[in-house]
Amino acid sequence: MDRNLYLENMDVDEALKLFLDRSGQKQQTEKIPVIGSLGRVTADPVFAIYSSPNFNASAMDGIAVKAKDTFEASEVNLVILKKENHYKYVDTGDSISDPYDAVIMIEDIAEAGEDRVKIISPAFPWQHIRPIGEDIVANEMIIPSNHIIRPVDIGALLSGGITEIAVYKKPKVGIIPTGTEIVEPGEELRIGDIIESNSRIFEGLVIEYGGEPKRYAPVPDDYEKLKAALKNAAMENDIVVINAGSSAGSEDYTAKLVKDLGELILHGIATKPGKPAILGLIQGKPVIGVPGYPVSAWVVFEIFAKALINKWSGRPIKEEKTVEAVLSKRMVSSLKNKEYVRIKLGKVMDNLIATPLNRGAGVTMSLVRADGILEIPQTSEGFEAGEKIKVKLLKDLEDIQNTIVSIGSHDLIMDIAGNMMHRKNSGYNLSSAHVGSMGGIMAIRRGEAHIAPIHLLDEKTGIYNIEYIKKYLSNIDMALIKGVKRVQGIMTKKNNPKSIKGIEDLMREDIGFVNRQKGAGTRILVDYLLKKSNLDAEKIRGYEREMTTHMAVAAAIASGTADMGVGVYSAAKAMNLDFIPIGEEDYDFAIPRAFLGEDMIELFIEVIMSQEFKNYLQSMGGYGTENTGEII
Amino acid sequence: MDRNLYLENMDVDEALKLFLDRSGQKQQTEKIPVIGSLGRVTADPVFAIYSSPNFNASAMDGIAVKAKDTFEASEVNLVILKKENHYKYVDTGDSISDPYDAVIMIEDIAEAGEDRVKIISPAFPWQHIRPIGEDIVANEMIIPSNHIIRPVDIGALLSGGITEIAVYKKPKVGIIPTGTEIVEPGEELRIGDIIESNSRIFEGLVIEYGGEPKRYAPVPDDYEKLKAALKNAAMENDIVVINAGSSAGSEDYTAKLVKDLGELILHGIATKPGKPAILGLIQGKPVIGVPGYPVSAWVVFEIFAKALINKWSGRPIKEEKTVEAVLSKRMVSSLKNKEYVRIKLGKVMDNLIATPLNRGAGVTMSLVRADGILEIPQTSEGFEAGEKIKVKLLKDLEDIQNTIVSIGSHDLIMDIAGNMMHRKNSGYNLSSAHVGSMGGIMAIRRGEAHIAPIHLLDEKTGIYNIEYIKKYLSNIDMALIKGVKRVQGIMTKKNNPKSIKGIEDLMREDIGFVNRQKGAGTRILVDYLLKKSNLDAEKIRGYEREMTTHMAVAAAIASGTADMGVGVYSAAKAMNLDFIPIGEEDYDFAIPRAFLGEDMIELFIEVIMSQEFKNYLQSMGGYGTENTGEII
Repeated sequence: MDRNLYLENMDVDEALKLFLDRSGQKQQTEKIPVIGSLGRVTADPVFAIYSSPNFNASAMDGIAVKAKDTFEASEVNLVILKKENHYKYVDTGDSISDPYDAVIMIEDIAEAGEDRVKIISPAFPWQHIRPIGEDIVANEMIIPSNHIIRPVDIGALLSGGITEIAVYKKPKVGIIPTGTEIVEPGEELRIGDIIESNSRIFEGLVIEYGGEPKRYAPVPDDYEKLKAALKNAAMENDIVVINAGSSAGSEDYTAKLVKDLGELILHGIATKPGKPAILGLIQGKPVIGVPGYPVSAWVVFEIFAKALINKWSGRPIKEEKTVEAVLSKRMVSSLKNKEYVRIKLGKVMDNLIATPLNRGAGVTMSLVRADGILEIPQTSEGFEAGEKIKVKLLKDLEDIQNTIVSIGSHDLIMDIAGNMMHRKNSGYNLSSAHVGSMGGIMAIRRGEAHIAPIHLLDEKTGIYNIEYIKKYLSNIDMALIKGVKRVQGIMTKKNNPKSIKGIEDLMREDIGFVNRQKGAGTRILVDYLLKKSNLDAEKIRGYEREMTTHMAVAAAIASGTADMGVGVYSAAKAMNLDFIPIGEEDYDFAIPRAFLGEDMIELFIEVIMSQEFKNYLQSMGGYGTENTGEII
Repeated sequence: MDRNLYLENMDVDEALKLFLDRSGQKQQTEKIPVIGSLGRVTADPVFAIYSSPNFNASAMDGIAVKAKDTFEASEVNLVILKKENHYKYVDTGDSISDPYDAVIMIEDIAEAGEDRVKIISPAFPWQHIRPIGEDIVANEMIIPSNHIIRPVDIGALLSGGITEIAVYKKPKVGIIPTGTEIVEPGEELRIGDIIESNSRIFEGLVIEYGGEPKRYAPVPDDYEKLKAALKNAAMENDIVVINAGSSAGSEDYTAKLVKDLGELILHGIATKPGKPAILGLIQGKPVIGVPGYPVSAWVVFEIFAKALINKWSGRPIKEEKTVEAVLSKRMVSSLKNKEYVRIKLGKVMDNLIATPLNRGAGVTMSLVRADGILEIPQTSEGFEAGEKIKVKLLKDLEDIQNTIVSIGSHDLIMDIAGNMMHRKNSGYNLSSAHVGSMGGIMAIRRGEAHIAPIHLLDEKTGIYNIEYIKKYLSNIDMALIKGVKRVQGIMTKKNNPKSIKGIEDLMREDIGFVNRQKGAGTRILVDYLLKKSNLDAEKIRGYEREMTTHMAVAAAIASGTADMGVGVYSAAKAMNLDFIPIGEEDYDFAIPRAFLGEDMIELFIEVIMSQEFKNYLQSMGGYGTENTGEII
């Protein structure tokens, strides 16, 4: 085994400073045509060459006159002007020059025979004339340096006689994906393969930060091949990003490669995720070795590549936008590193609520779903629930405020309804977090959610949901929006190879189960069924294996790591599993009555009552929509 | 004369609704590769095809084991595992499959002879294994419809097995510049010519709003040529913008063209600027006739083209960001129309101050300089100074807050200093408004500016600036930052064709003067000199012709509309004029002492004291920098 067990643990700010210092100031500029310069960054202030207008121009349609010829005019003393001698017709924009020094509007003159007009009031000198330089005066500064060129800037630059400008060159960023296990999107995916996607995220980020990405074909974990690729990329670019091979595994060559080809500045930073970052120089070009997990990769890219690209592209530095929010649950963080936690934000009543998303370094979807990032400093052990925290925004606060926060049980219909809502009024969104029905009830109690999708069976009465709301939310004036009738059933492999017939098969020696987390409505249903049949949960193989969504249960069965699970029809269908119905349940929405009047909630109800929504559910199967949208 | 004198005056909201309704819903979609889809807008929600990972994967470097083989392990009961039988080495990301169901980290094992390791604690089932679908579960929604694709979305889509997605087609927008008077940028500019720049602003805006611009070569004001161009553009595009010919002048053909080729929906909206807008349909394609003045053009484009492009490109509708600000001066507006006023914002103390920029429809620079737009409804006659108004932001509020608001006398050095500041710290800006020295003093008194550049001569003492501050700003604790010694002089045409020798030449019959506005330091200087020489201002030809900057005075002389003016050397030099020095004055900065500690003010002082700044001034000539940056 050839493992590089030792990584440094450098403070991230220190590492960034070191990296930027060592990378140097290699801004380059180039002259480009103004036309097509949208979004580029000026390297110098730009001064007008011409004035605009560069002549005295009529500001009106009318006649050009000599003001002194008109001074006697009044309502009782009409003045007659003769063409050629006294006036000429002008359109807006026509040049006004000697001997004329004023314009009278067409509405203020009357014809008085051929080539004669009469006026009843005097024109003062220079009236209705746009003086030379009214818009732009030659030599005045049109835009400063380090300015991102906007459409109106292009207009003003051209008007000022500028056709070429000096801008910062876009730094070229080479991106090398590596790894024997990765395959290109669209290629056949075998067990153990990973679709290469990080480099495509980097490509997009490089463009957004003002650089020019060059993505290379993936290189397998082979020292010589990697060496050749890295050397070439350093030659062809200003900055190189190599992904991954940055860790301490037996096939992680990046640190050694950087050392062999140039200089290793550091290996390992005190962040989570992103620890095994590598920074170095090859042929004087900064190289960033980025870890493989997508979120680690993103964190390291955002810290080092973003700062360097921004600097070299000459863009103005912007403070990152932050908001204060209330943390919805306790978060413990290590003193060993600074942690970057993806945060879902929601505005419920007057509070901005921050809910941490999956902290796993491999969960790209946590970035897709994130509204912001919470940085927990290395010196902090975390935060308590209810504490006020500062969140760096990834989205507009406005979008966040116009979002229904749904916390509770998972069902595909939440995605469907959210999408239909957004399509009807793109100002509104629905964000749904899956923490199980009881988790939803608790979120409502803590004022963290607008609605909680729940399906909670009361064992005594056999009635869904209402008893739970009464019991746990008695101090809030609550309503229940009726959702759907949902078929629950046993999921098992296609064609049911283990001949499962019912819940009692869970007791079989040869059956592996996969369960849902505590508080999930489906878990409560399973426990209810076990109790009813006097079955002992402790004897079930896999009872302790908990998944948080129907789809995750279905996926576990599809992949063969379990034989049997309980969930909804749509999940079984999606994963091509057999489905044995065990009953119908009420999947409803608990909502504080106070929210019922809000526009976005009304839109949500409108959507779930719509024929389009019902048709969609019918096409999926497994749902009934008798009372959908009814408010209790 | 063939003039179309009558324009409608339709309410703008009504006009927009009519236009959008008549334009119809012609959104088209297309399938494109995910790679390269950055910034496009999804037409449908996108559901994952594969799970990610799509196998159970080791989350650590270590060994894969069967959990049940390890249950007995403890510190007092080492368990020895044999390779092949009990474990295999795995790297992070390797597939874990039957018979293995747990991973032990490399750090937690010890070698125990060849192909043997020992462990001291049990592994629980599924530990350190990323379950199938941990990131993405097949069939879950990755992104909704009407979503602008970001870099992380591309990563998630690829990981979920998506290689192609349905997006909205970018609406094609044809842009036709017209006018016999326009010339292309870079072409020779004769008197009466206008550089064509509006179409280039539109190009940029179309791109920003998600459309695909197609700009045609300019067409002269010729009915048949215009007809052919418009017909062709309607055929080749989804939307056509024609600029200009929309007014009621003798060569304004657009309305007639639209009528002849299709249907004229309306001509004339109740806005200022932008009144002569034209809306129509040709071959069923929406056509927008945009007026010629750049600001009018921008207003009409922003109202109609933006709304339509946004709608057809499927982008989520965003509320426009507004702020509340205090209006710095009275603004009267007509009841005949809704007015769009460009606003400069500045944060002074705790107040956001809104200062209207030049309201002229031809002043592109008012758009370049604007921080926001004030919409004065048709039903309003305007606002009083000090009134709170709502301003639509064109820039980030943060940028506005980090801007030194300078109001007062004009000098090129303000641009130079502002640019150097911005270059040293791109987080800070300097915005300078030119209202003359007394205007600056008054702005400080009203709390609307951080600094006021002034050069005000006290007639009695002959001392600059200090007396004025004492007199007009006695109730504010003020400081004076010494600026530059500045040479003032008489500007006249190159080679002094009228043999001007001094201020007394102003009395000559053959000399036309161009003056500065009341309250300008230079005006005060001129009056002082006239008084000293017992000259009668009333007898000066052009005394009443007021310009608001040195450059405007210089431009008037350069263009031959005046023979003589007073201003600074840099302006004369820039316009290639002769310059007869008449004295040196103190151009200083009045500043409330309270602002001296602010970072951006300190940066400003640092800049004007820098050698770089002094060198720059020396290279321009006409400035002395003995005490620059000194605080009094």
